[in-house]
Amino acid sequence: MLTLHSYFRSSAAYRVRIALNLKGLPYTYAAVHLLKDGGQQHSADYQRVNPAQLVPTLIDSGHAVGQSLAIMEYLDETHPEPALMPRDPLGRARVRALALCVACEIHPLNNLRVLQYLDAKLKVEESAKSDWYRHWITLGFTAIEAMLANDPATGVFCHGDTPGLADCCLIPQIANSRRFDTPLEAFPTIRRIEQACLTLEAFANAAPQQQPDAV
Amino acid sequence: MLTLHSYFRSSAAYRVRIALNLKGLPYTYAAVHLLKDGGQQHSADYQRVNPAQLVPTLIDSGHAVGQSLAIMEYLDETHPEPALMPRDPLGRARVRALALCVACEIHPLNNLRVLQYLDAKLKVEESAKSDWYRHWITLGFTAIEAMLANDPATGVFCHGDTPGLADCCLIPQIANSRRFDTPLEAFPTIRRIEQACLTLEAFANAAPQQQPDAV
Repeated sequence: MLTLHSYFRSSAAYRVRIALNLKGLPYTYAAVHLLKDGGQQHSADYQRVNPAQLVPTLIDSGHAVGQSLAIMEYLDETHPEPALMPRDPLGRARVRALALCVACEIHPLNNLRVLQYLDAKLKVEESAKSDWYRHWITLGFTAIEAMLANDPATGVFCHGDTPGLADCCLIPQIANSRRFDTPLEAFPTIRRIEQACLTLEAFANAAPQQQPDAV
Repeated sequence: MLTLHSYFRSSAAYRVRIALNLKGLPYTYAAVHLLKDGGQQHSADYQRVNPAQLVPTLIDSGHAVGQSLAIMEYLDETHPEPALMPRDPLGRARVRALALCVACEIHPLNNLRVLQYLDAKLKVEESAKSDWYRHWITLGFTAIEAMLANDPATGVFCHGDTPGLADCCLIPQIANSRRFDTPLEAFPTIRRIEQACLTLEAFANAAPQQQPDAV
């Protein structure tokens, strides 16, 4: 019995929705609205589930697991097939490094609470906030493009010819970049992999607009 | 043959130095000065090693691995003893979630290039920059304290009575918080674990001021 606490627009939750779909695991969708009621992630009930007050959280038979990368590795350890990770340590390190490039170098700088801080505390104007948003994507994607384009380990997907953990992180970040009109011309390998992923139901069905809480 | 590209003050490199020491693995220290020469991490030579232009990078017999969490997991897979991770999937998920709370929720907001952007592009004043720095630490540590204090899996260290991957991430972040005079009174469990770690040579010898490039 799996339940995913998710918000349709959260790209961290989107990663886990792709992973669950790739593994063919059914789950209950528990919506946490990040903007309603002053942010439902801050409610006392949700804090008991996830003290970090962030989505997603996976509940597996009563056990709560937070942090999208930890959730995906947990799913890969508890439901090994189809695998989200290669078997060799260097391949695993490469996939994790690509995933972390999104999860540590881009996404944390652009998530809701950071944009709210720029706005409320630092009085950053809308256009400067968009510049900020695009700056970290461009910087991160420049690194990822180089990691992908110059490595024979890259296949149809980020690592080889089956979709995996790095793709689960990359696709939601591309979706965010499009929402903020970030130019992607300089990232042909990233765009090629996006096209390959979006033909798969596991990715298409995980998209924000397909979720029950989408508005 | 292991080489670590490191900068003494980088807390991501500090994590890996602790992990290498805990495993008793000797390595060559290759200093990358993040401020000299416009940032040595941006040199053409270093970009070939790490396209993300970040420290640390581990070189294992000619193979480069970037991203501190990916490096530590790689070390744990290639040199299993002593283990940095528990064996059970829920325990592993918990350790990863704690590590990611530091690596995704705190550190990316406070690293050098972000502070430089606040300064140069957004003209944020020194005191507001310090507020920003402490804000993300306080928020992240509040979550981590709750995750540690309310879980019987916490032992002398973050997970049980042996030091591991979560401790490797936590201790450098505490060091950063002290550098910026962040109040830590509200985090008794974090402070208790810090005390336990700092009695160990593996942690003490990984500290910034012990590194060959410390100034």
